[in-house]
Amino acid sequence: MKKMSLLIFSGDYDKALAAMILANTAREMEIDVTLFFAFWGLLLLRDPQKMSTEDKTSYEKMFAAMTPKSPEDLPLSKMNFSGIGKQMLLSMMEDEDAPSLTAFLNGAIKKGVKFYGCKLSMEIMGFQIEELLPQVKVMTAKEYIEDALNSDIQLFI
Amino acid sequence: MKKMSLLIFSGDYDKALAAMILANTAREMEIDVTLFFAFWGLLLLRDPQKMSTEDKTSYEKMFAAMTPKSPEDLPLSKMNFSGIGKQMLLSMMEDEDAPSLTAFLNGAIKKGVKFYGCKLSMEIMGFQIEELLPQVKVMTAKEYIEDALNSDIQLFI
Amino acid sequence: MKKMSLLIFSGDYDKALAAMILANTAREMEIDVTLFFAFWGLLLLRDPQKMSTEDKTSYEKMFAAMTPKSPEDLPLSKMNFSGIGKQMLLSMMEDEDAPSLTAFLNGAIKKGVKFYGCKLSMEIMGFQIEELLPQVKVMTAKEYIEDALNSDIQLFI
Repeated sequence: MKKMSLLIFSGDYDKALAAMILANTAREMEIDVTLFFAFWGLLLLRDPQKMSTEDKTSYEKMFAAMTPKSPEDLPLSKMNFSGIGKQMLLSMMEDEDAPSLTAFLNGAIKKGVKFYGCKLSMEIMGFQIEELLPQVKVMTAKEYIEDALNSDIQLFI
Repeated sequence: MKKMSLLIFSGDYDKALAAMILANTAREMEIDVTLFFAFWGLLLLRDPQKMSTEDKTSYEKMFAAMTPKSPEDLPLSKMNFSGIGKQMLLSMMEDEDAPSLTAFLNGAIKKGVKFYGCKLSMEIMGFQIEELLPQVKVMTAKEYIEDALNSDIQLFI
Repeated sequence: MKKMSLLIFSGDYDKALAAMILANTAREMEIDVTLFFAFWGLLLLRDPQKMSTEDKTSYEKMFAAMTPKSPEDLPLSKMNFSGIGKQMLLSMMEDEDAPSLTAFLNGAIKKGVKFYGCKLSMEIMGFQIEELLPQVKVMTAKEYIEDALNSDIQLFI
């Protein structure tokens, strides 16, 4: 079985969309897909219903409060213009009946894409596993590399 | 024959330059090169002589008007300083007789690098194939993945 | 022996951190690691003790003066907030006893990670090999591609 491994470092709406389109498409082709979310990429996995301030230092609380609470809140990597550029992109996507980022995320989960949060990033940013989507498991950098070594496609997004 | 596949997501002058240097160098080594332009990457392929407002929604017209019209108009990913940083880079490149982005693009075309625009991105952004360089063909995400699976090097730029 | 090749284009503190964590972890797994620093990535390799204005054009002097002088001076790719966001990240890293970027760089050098500066980027930006960390060697794009072709993991960071 062919295998694709994406390291999702970025927390941008447009890059997340690209990653999710690749993940969904690969699964439709029966390719095994691993997504490893590190640093800003973890912001794609937050569940706005499950935010918690428990076990967080003051910095971690501040960080959690200052960063986007859900995938739909992520900014564009370019031309965000305080959100106007993003609204424009969303409208253009709707005109083409293209699904939203959340729809692509849900599609990926249903199709069996594997979601992993980077252990070290979660520790530094203070995100507990309970605050993330229930499908997410924790993975170390070592485990990511082992998995990537066995992949036919590896990308850093 | 060895094969390299670059997914060009970014619309930055400096990243485009890096991609084109890799593509040209690989072709000189007789490596087969596929470039898949998605999202902002499509801005590298616009032909300023062939802009059209036909079949465009209002958002698509606005988008086409607000974004760089040709590769040489792309900003830097960093230190652009409203164009001053970019002028500085261009002058430094000239001092070293390094070709411009357009020269690298033309070189890549002459050397047989294959150019593909992402179908979904073109639909969302409203770019018609007639508005892009004549060498560009349309490719789906599925076709990109099939091609990348057979590549020895895959990068997301 | 397995092999990993990272092309480090970005000059952001957070992306540099991600690259160095991958490089250190891979070496601990006895994977051969090549780092190819291009464009802004060269800013990770500057030795603040060894800056020189010799053989530099006026633009190159200006460029050297305007860009970060050492790895610890690099900004974040996001939420840098004129340095406040970065201080926050550094404090959060300290709370978790996570090493700084410099510590990861030194660790990578000790573990035998190979460091290469992109020849063309060094020429354009005017960096002499003497201004960079002593472990850095010069590499052309052609040599990078040859090396990447033989790697099991290739990422563009």
